Amino acid sequence: MTHDFELDPRLAADTVAVADWPLSRLLLMNDARFPWLVLVPRRAGLSELHGLSAEDRPVLFAEVLKAGAGLKAATGAAKINTGALGNLVPQLHIHVVARNPGDTAWPGPVWGQGAAKPYGAAALEALLNTLRAAL
Amino acid sequence: MTHDFELDPRLAADTVAVADWPLSRLLLMNDARFPWLVLVPRRAGLSELHGLSAEDRPVLFAEVLKAGAGLKAATGAAKINTGALGNLVPQLHIHVVARNPGDTAWPGPVWGQGAAKPYGAAALEALLNTLRAAL
Repeated sequence: MTHDFELDPRLAADTVAVADWPLSRLLLMNDARFPWLVLVPRRAGLSELHGLSAEDRPVLFAEVLKAGAGLKAATGAAKINTGALGNLVPQLHIHVVARNPGDTAWPGPVWGQGAAKPYGAAALEALLNTLRAAL
Repeated sequence: MTHDFELDPRLAADTVAVADWPLSRLLLMNDARFPWLVLVPRRAGLSELHGLSAEDRPVLFAEVLKAGAGLKAATGAAKINTGALGNLVPQLHIHVVARNPGDTAWPGPVWGQGAAKPYGAAALEALLNTLRAAL
């Protein structure tokens, strides 16, 4: 199934690629308001977490935890928020977001809150370098 | 550590107990707007998913997937939303929410959206019976 995988065009438009992990494509949301990763298992036709195969389940969970721990270490965030929603983009994707008291959505969720604020080119490159080193 | 576990009083106030699973206490949010489960691993002092022990990680993920699949089957929901936020209540807890186009928060997230609408006693008992049978 992996060879049938294509990243949803809305996810592609909102993100930049960080890495391909064994199961997931690791993306960074181009939104400077929050350091925000998205993991997309490279499997075609998945929309619910419970649709994962028995083999893929522990791999995805390990990747989600690795992303969260690494993002927290790299950013010094107070809290990691993790979510799989998919009400707008059905392709299974897991958000891993660094949160801090005083960020523009705190203490609410980031989803559906205002418009993304794209990174400048230098800030984006610096953050990608930091994340690739930390993850 | 399990014997030190105490459910956060805010979670206790907002929910009713459904079951104790091997790792998690399974709760139902008393909010008739959305069929909404919350899983709380019975471990003291946890706040991040990546703080789980290696032994507990696959158990929690299996319980989250079981809750999502069971809730979807029991309610016929269009989509399951899964999230671990913890910006207000630091005790690690995972939300598993049944979502449908036209629900009061669709397509946004349920967190931080308006006030809970408690179930009537008969509706609550019926839903608990349905969930206990499905899960």
